[in-house]
Amino acid sequence: MSLQNPVFIPGPTNIPEAIRKACDMPTIDHRSPLFATILHPAIDGCRKVLKTSEGELFIFPATGSGGWEAALSNTLSPGDTILAARNGMFSHKWIDMCHRFGLNVVQVDVPWGEGLPVAKFEEILRADPDARIKAVLATHNETATGVVSDIAGLRRAMDAAGHGALLMVDGVSSIGSMPFEFDQWGVDVAVTGSQKGFMLPVGLAITCFSPKAVAASKTATLPRTFWSIDDMRKGYAANAYPYTPSVGLLNGLKLSTEMLLAEGLDNVFARHARIANGVRAAVQAWGMTPCAVSPDLYSNTVTAIRTPEGFNASTIVDRAALDYGMAFGTGLGDVAGKVFRIGHLGMLTDAMALSGIATAEMVMVDLGLPVTLGSGVAAAQGVYRRGTRVAQEKAA
Amino acid sequence: MSLQNPVFIPGPTNIPEAIRKACDMPTIDHRSPLFATILHPAIDGCRKVLKTSEGELFIFPATGSGGWEAALSNTLSPGDTILAARNGMFSHKWIDMCHRFGLNVVQVDVPWGEGLPVAKFEEILRADPDARIKAVLATHNETATGVVSDIAGLRRAMDAAGHGALLMVDGVSSIGSMPFEFDQWGVDVAVTGSQKGFMLPVGLAITCFSPKAVAASKTATLPRTFWSIDDMRKGYAANAYPYTPSVGLLNGLKLSTEMLLAEGLDNVFARHARIANGVRAAVQAWGMTPCAVSPDLYSNTVTAIRTPEGFNASTIVDRAALDYGMAFGTGLGDVAGKVFRIGHLGMLTDAMALSGIATAEMVMVDLGLPVTLGSGVAAAQGVYRRGTRVAQEKAA
Amino acid sequence: MSLQNPVFIPGPTNIPEAIRKACDMPTIDHRSPLFATILHPAIDGCRKVLKTSEGELFIFPATGSGGWEAALSNTLSPGDTILAARNGMFSHKWIDMCHRFGLNVVQVDVPWGEGLPVAKFEEILRADPDARIKAVLATHNETATGVVSDIAGLRRAMDAAGHGALLMVDGVSSIGSMPFEFDQWGVDVAVTGSQKGFMLPVGLAITCFSPKAVAASKTATLPRTFWSIDDMRKGYAANAYPYTPSVGLLNGLKLSTEMLLAEGLDNVFARHARIANGVRAAVQAWGMTPCAVSPDLYSNTVTAIRTPEGFNASTIVDRAALDYGMAFGTGLGDVAGKVFRIGHLGMLTDAMALSGIATAEMVMVDLGLPVTLGSGVAAAQGVYRRGTRVAQEKAA
Amino acid sequence: MSLQNPVFIPGPTNIPEAIRKACDMPTIDHRSPLFATILHPAIDGCRKVLKTSEGELFIFPATGSGGWEAALSNTLSPGDTILAARNGMFSHKWIDMCHRFGLNVVQVDVPWGEGLPVAKFEEILRADPDARIKAVLATHNETATGVVSDIAGLRRAMDAAGHGALLMVDGVSSIGSMPFEFDQWGVDVAVTGSQKGFMLPVGLAITCFSPKAVAASKTATLPRTFWSIDDMRKGYAANAYPYTPSVGLLNGLKLSTEMLLAEGLDNVFARHARIANGVRAAVQAWGMTPCAVSPDLYSNTVTAIRTPEGFNASTIVDRAALDYGMAFGTGLGDVAGKVFRIGHLGMLTDAMALSGIATAEMVMVDLGLPVTLGSGVAAAQGVYRRGTRVAQEKAA
Repeated sequence: MSLQNPVFIPGPTNIPEAIRKACDMPTIDHRSPLFATILHPAIDGCRKVLKTSEGELFIFPATGSGGWEAALSNTLSPGDTILAARNGMFSHKWIDMCHRFGLNVVQVDVPWGEGLPVAKFEEILRADPDARIKAVLATHNETATGVVSDIAGLRRAMDAAGHGALLMVDGVSSIGSMPFEFDQWGVDVAVTGSQKGFMLPVGLAITCFSPKAVAASKTATLPRTFWSIDDMRKGYAANAYPYTPSVGLLNGLKLSTEMLLAEGLDNVFARHARIANGVRAAVQAWGMTPCAVSPDLYSNTVTAIRTPEGFNASTIVDRAALDYGMAFGTGLGDVAGKVFRIGHLGMLTDAMALSGIATAEMVMVDLGLPVTLGSGVAAAQGVYRRGTRVAQEKAA
Repeated sequence: MSLQNPVFIPGPTNIPEAIRKACDMPTIDHRSPLFATILHPAIDGCRKVLKTSEGELFIFPATGSGGWEAALSNTLSPGDTILAARNGMFSHKWIDMCHRFGLNVVQVDVPWGEGLPVAKFEEILRADPDARIKAVLATHNETATGVVSDIAGLRRAMDAAGHGALLMVDGVSSIGSMPFEFDQWGVDVAVTGSQKGFMLPVGLAITCFSPKAVAASKTATLPRTFWSIDDMRKGYAANAYPYTPSVGLLNGLKLSTEMLLAEGLDNVFARHARIANGVRAAVQAWGMTPCAVSPDLYSNTVTAIRTPEGFNASTIVDRAALDYGMAFGTGLGDVAGKVFRIGHLGMLTDAMALSGIATAEMVMVDLGLPVTLGSGVAAAQGVYRRGTRVAQEKAA
Repeated sequence: MSLQNPVFIPGPTNIPEAIRKACDMPTIDHRSPLFATILHPAIDGCRKVLKTSEGELFIFPATGSGGWEAALSNTLSPGDTILAARNGMFSHKWIDMCHRFGLNVVQVDVPWGEGLPVAKFEEILRADPDARIKAVLATHNETATGVVSDIAGLRRAMDAAGHGALLMVDGVSSIGSMPFEFDQWGVDVAVTGSQKGFMLPVGLAITCFSPKAVAASKTATLPRTFWSIDDMRKGYAANAYPYTPSVGLLNGLKLSTEMLLAEGLDNVFARHARIANGVRAAVQAWGMTPCAVSPDLYSNTVTAIRTPEGFNASTIVDRAALDYGMAFGTGLGDVAGKVFRIGHLGMLTDAMALSGIATAEMVMVDLGLPVTLGSGVAAAQGVYRRGTRVAQEKAA
Repeated sequence: MSLQNPVFIPGPTNIPEAIRKACDMPTIDHRSPLFATILHPAIDGCRKVLKTSEGELFIFPATGSGGWEAALSNTLSPGDTILAARNGMFSHKWIDMCHRFGLNVVQVDVPWGEGLPVAKFEEILRADPDARIKAVLATHNETATGVVSDIAGLRRAMDAAGHGALLMVDGVSSIGSMPFEFDQWGVDVAVTGSQKGFMLPVGLAITCFSPKAVAASKTATLPRTFWSIDDMRKGYAANAYPYTPSVGLLNGLKLSTEMLLAEGLDNVFARHARIANGVRAAVQAWGMTPCAVSPDLYSNTVTAIRTPEGFNASTIVDRAALDYGMAFGTGLGDVAGKVFRIGHLGMLTDAMALSGIATAEMVMVDLGLPVTLGSGVAAAQGVYRRGTRVAQEKAA
């Protein structure tokens, strides 16, 4: 595996030079005033990226999976009921966690490749006049299938159903890369990690709690210590943590949010959309289709690509690593062997994206798939090249 | 706060150059074979440092506090009883966690500065013929007071009492710096973090479970997902993690264990003892005393120093940071304001230790304490200088 | 200009991660024994890369141009005559330096794109029975035109002419990337820099002197202090430098030679040839031609590409930088505006090379050149893909 | 040799974290506009540090010794006469270079430990009515002896003598650490390096030429190519270099000048003076004396310390390295074995300085010198501690 090539796994992403340097920090005293000059800007930056003015932000020295645990354990009690759909490996895992915590799960099974069943959710919520359902869990972007779901629509459905459940959103592979509106969408708990849109190494679970979710934490009885937002809040008030914080990663997060906000979130999202469009153009040129079943579900951070029947898609990932030192994502769970994934989030350039597309082509030709060398690249170049951009801007 | 000065907090430690570079790693695919070449040597290295051939090692992308949670949640069930002593801030916090998890705590209160009450523990265990007590929690090195306790003695007492409770040891500020014998001492669960004896940044909770503890996990019912050793074991078997691992830190941990083992653990421990002896000689020269009440309790990783009655010890820490850009540790909990702490663990040199001692002296003189400039330094130099070492070796 | 993209200038090259870390070194005492453990392995490694057992190696904290100055000033005296061909910008500049040093230059003008005129040189040397010509200067690889010349052939011609002039070779953009045989080719002075085949940052002029060249230095009277090989030799004998050395770069050079020798020089050269073949296949697919006039002159480290008459080739470089954040080389001197250059030396991967080719294509299409998107990429993929490699190995 | 300890050689200095990161830069195109955004601020920053509005600044990818060569070769012709004093190893070496370049040297021998003989110089210049002397060479700070000379006084003497020679100043170990006034002192050529007051790694020779020196370059006939300020000027005008520049070091230099100017040059100089005062207080406490014969000659960047008669001072340096992993400077040339040197320039803190002083004490006691442990430290602490600073500020 070459350290020279960019990676095309759907996170952790390639880390920009400046962020690597910000994270690679000498030890400082995490109880000193210097730490406060890192912690608070990092928190404030995250709140801007999540577009919240009311949400409370808590950053745990852990991973996104830990963020799920923080979401559940701070707001729910054993025996509580939650509503969730299983449409990919990550929604599946969050549901599994609910079971382990003794929660009742109203589970809606959805074919992998489809989005959240908003109408079905509304129906279920309407059928719950006693508000037995305490929370709706939603995976904004299913990293396993490359499917983005409509969180704003889900909120509208919840409101239409007049249901007061908490809306908990896994935004691990969307936040910082695709539009996310914590306040406007009425999200109650959002969860993400450092290693996706924030372009950092693994090690921070970033969570945001609405006032309503914070209120719920006052009565929720699931056990929590490491994940306690109460302890965390007290720590922050003293410019500290309830335990030892990951100072270097927080310093990197501060810079990451500065970079995202300096570029402009809309520009960041447009950049991701453009890169993703190029990848999808390549997929089409290869005569293949995304796992996501319709264009409104296409993710701008990862594309899962269905390979022909009878072909083991994972061999693409294996050969790319062995023969070209390049990392793509394998299919997981229900779509294992059926898809391979190209991650295209973080600080990718056109040139980097093209190197991934070109390498995937070589592998597929090596493996005898009916793909023409250069075909996907040409399609993506058509999307990426300046002439196209200029023409689109003129048309707009 | 100068980034040029070493830190003298009792962890995170100063990070050796080579370890910083090992941690500052570009993104690789954590599902690729390359990851296996990092993960398994890191695990094996840790097992050698903990001196275990039977223990199973699990590394969580979190902190030592998370390691406590992993220890409890994998082995105990709600309503279980544990035995613990409260002799410092960190034993206090672990007990608090037990309460939150719905465990019954048989708590022995011990004055801060004293060690684990081994005889008292034996007595309690003897009085528990029905084995109501499922686990004994022991803080090997109380970072708040600079007190090291006798874990081998505790095991002997447990055996003498004929009690089958699990022995869970917080070795956060001892492992890698002071003798620790997982197998020989009969430890069932050990917990440490990356940022102390392993000299890494914060971000890894390193835990080790004996076969007996692993067996207990089969029936333990406390909820666990992020902290599940079962999931972790399955991941490792596939050269992977149940979620995204901290690859850079694991790469650093691999190097750290290589460095510790290359130096030789006995040499590492002797180095820590020597540096600590110098610090304690300085304390004596200042006319002060360690918080630890007797020499057998003196920690070789941190010294908590009692300042004169009526003096607020925390001002030393504040002024050192403001006036000299140097970080010491404040007193916590019961000894807040009564002690300040000099951390002396990790890759300290004599020269670095002397710079800390010299700076502490300047601060204390500035604050009007009856300390003579150079006195503590001279005492420590007497310990550190080559002539002394040579003489001691000859005498030995 | 994106820091994410690889560069395609013909040096400085992309720097491998490990080499960057080796160069980024804390300050050590350059008069301590530690320095010797860096200096001598670096020198020995270079000698192996240059394939010399008799040559003396001297490394100046400067650039390749300084190496030219070291070559001349240590071996020649004012008024001496040298023979050189002008077939590119770098041979032009070395000749200019000779003039400045008061040397007589027998200059052979060669169209840019052609190699050293070996037959013409032989003719001139035969016509110099009094050995007025003291040195022949040869640019092994003209970085401006992408032309590699036949140094072994030049040596044969010199021998055939029975002429005893020194053979001085500029191997700046060849050594470490293409075959170079200091001893076997009878080179008397070789000059290179750190930032090409050695993949380091700029800052080291690496020179090698044959016993004959060293002998010449005993009587040569051009002034020299900074460039004095005598002073340098005395320094090395004391594990030191006559002035302050670039310790970090030397540490990087030590690693670089270790990496090259571990890969195997023949493998390194084959890798460069393969990458270069792909680039040339792309050039052909674009309907263009290299500046080098015949295949035997094709350089494996840089390709200068002639663009259509009337088109300013430099606009490609400008637009690539502005629109895609990618760096190519402009045409210099006689071929300014007529060629653009793709550097392909150092630690390039197939995927990196393809990203450069793909980007060049987008730029050329944007600029209205008759190039088909994906055409060059497909041609290069045909060279790079594993299937091709395997077929070639079978055929061989 | 520990990489953990600060170094106390009189350059290269300890490199601040931020500067190391600025230098450790990925490859960029040095012919791109991005390079201009590094080059010009670095040059402008240096001009501010040198306090010149009229001087032209040229930065060579080499060392300070190369800067000497640039000074001579751009302004003088073979056979020209220069005036210089030999009062240390570095003035000795610059004179040696003059001889090699065929210059006539009027050499004034001065005991090592004394400063430039300004009155003697004036006398010599007065006795040169035909202006045979073209340049006066002055070593501002003799790194070998820790002696700073009076450049302003030298200028006054030259003016008093009515002599028009160029004033060339070696400011390698003074510029950026001690007051230096290029314009006000009437300096014609100043030379320094990256690795002293600028706190960078070795690799940049920084030179400044007055309009008068630039005018002299128009007729000076010493050969020059690598060192040509004419070529360099043309390069800068095109945002480039006549050859490949050290981009990373220039990026570090840009930051270094920003840091120095942000701190305020007067504050930087005061910091150096304070640290130096502490070192000298320690020397006095040890019963020793600086090599510099009077307080007005004491250097604030390096102290050469005379050890007792019959004692080989170099053993201190050797043992410090072997026994404590700490680097001090040996005595050079006339004072070899008679002095050892403590470098105290760059970004030192009080704590770092004290660690050096404390280590020197241990070595001297180990070696049987009549030094009391802690004595020098106590003396330096008396200078460094906040109480002293406050008292001095009140008194002022």
